[in-house]
Amino acid sequence: MHFKNHVTRLSQYKAALQRLDNNNVERTHAETISTYIGIPATQIRKDFSLFGIRGNKRGGYNVKDLLEELKNILGLNRDIPVILLGYGNLGKALTRYQGFHEGCVRIVAAFDPGVGVLSSQPPIPVYPPASIPKFLKNNPVKHAILAVPNEVAQAIFDELYENGVRGFINFSTVSLNVPEDAYVNNVDLELELETVIYYTKESKNKV
Amino acid sequence: MHFKNHVTRLSQYKAALQRLDNNNVERTHAETISTYIGIPATQIRKDFSLFGIRGNKRGGYNVKDLLEELKNILGLNRDIPVILLGYGNLGKALTRYQGFHEGCVRIVAAFDPGVGVLSSQPPIPVYPPASIPKFLKNNPVKHAILAVPNEVAQAIFDELYENGVRGFINFSTVSLNVPEDAYVNNVDLELELETVIYYTKESKNKV
Repeated sequence: MHFKNHVTRLSQYKAALQRLDNNNVERTHAETISTYIGIPATQIRKDFSLFGIRGNKRGGYNVKDLLEELKNILGLNRDIPVILLGYGNLGKALTRYQGFHEGCVRIVAAFDPGVGVLSSQPPIPVYPPASIPKFLKNNPVKHAILAVPNEVAQAIFDELYENGVRGFINFSTVSLNVPEDAYVNNVDLELELETVIYYTKESKNKV
Repeated sequence: MHFKNHVTRLSQYKAALQRLDNNNVERTHAETISTYIGIPATQIRKDFSLFGIRGNKRGGYNVKDLLEELKNILGLNRDIPVILLGYGNLGKALTRYQGFHEGCVRIVAAFDPGVGVLSSQPPIPVYPPASIPKFLKNNPVKHAILAVPNEVAQAIFDELYENGVRGFINFSTVSLNVPEDAYVNNVDLELELETVIYYTKESKNKV
């Protein structure tokens, strides 16, 4: 069983702690973190306990220590190089995504067959897909963002996997065949929108 | 308390059922749905029970009936018009997003201050932000996608809320102040990537 929901929540806690730290707050409580992200304080304490995170005697936390601990657990205590597959509209949006610039994730290169016809200077190097194996041999990057058309998603995934990439975000809407030692996070934007529609519909059978 | 995880899972079940139906499968089981989306069959049965979904005596489900029931619960048994705020790279990518074309969600218009300098013909009408109130008066759309810069996200949200929009996907990385009768789904792409990094790190304290 995967603990995706746990990890997603830890990542949300980390984001809340980062904001507290940016605001020079030194100590905090589960109740305060809760107000930032809307997750109940009881759930926060349960998750912290599961991951071995302890507060002080009065249930408070040192913001900098807790932030460091969450980054350690999440594997974010270093710069994470990521490659981007597909430099279309979505790829371009991702290279400029503000969230990435605040964290430790850094898109180091993109790959796109249209590399020769880019209308403006990209903020990162863009290479043709044929150079993927050579690039990964020289730069052992472990994470990739798939922002490619559905038709080529599996082929690109396979090539990246063969060249050592193990962590993927998949924006295409196909279900990829994924070997056991790789992990794919499918970001389904329609599903995200459907959640919103559920909460705003007027109906009796809403939980 | 919000049931976001439940609703997200129902939406995933719906997507699996849609695929079974596309493949002309007539009957299915929780175990089969599980293989499509990786959620344990026990969890699927628990969720179905929570939302009052019953199978037949042997625990099976009629695919078309279940699909219809899930769509009813999710409020997806009709076309959902959505407006898009921001027609930059992300906005352009969203208007071409394949997932939306398969479902009932339809982006009907976009709003962007750069409407006069678009380099190519957009697939949907793009209007200047000043025309938001008039548009919403004539077209009572309830859902919006915020693909705008952080600096203007709250102001745009407020204007949409004042004009009757209640469901939002927020791609900006700011925490919006949201009235109680509105619902915002924050799509944090860095958080999605961090989940992937957690699963691919080599460490002892991984759950």
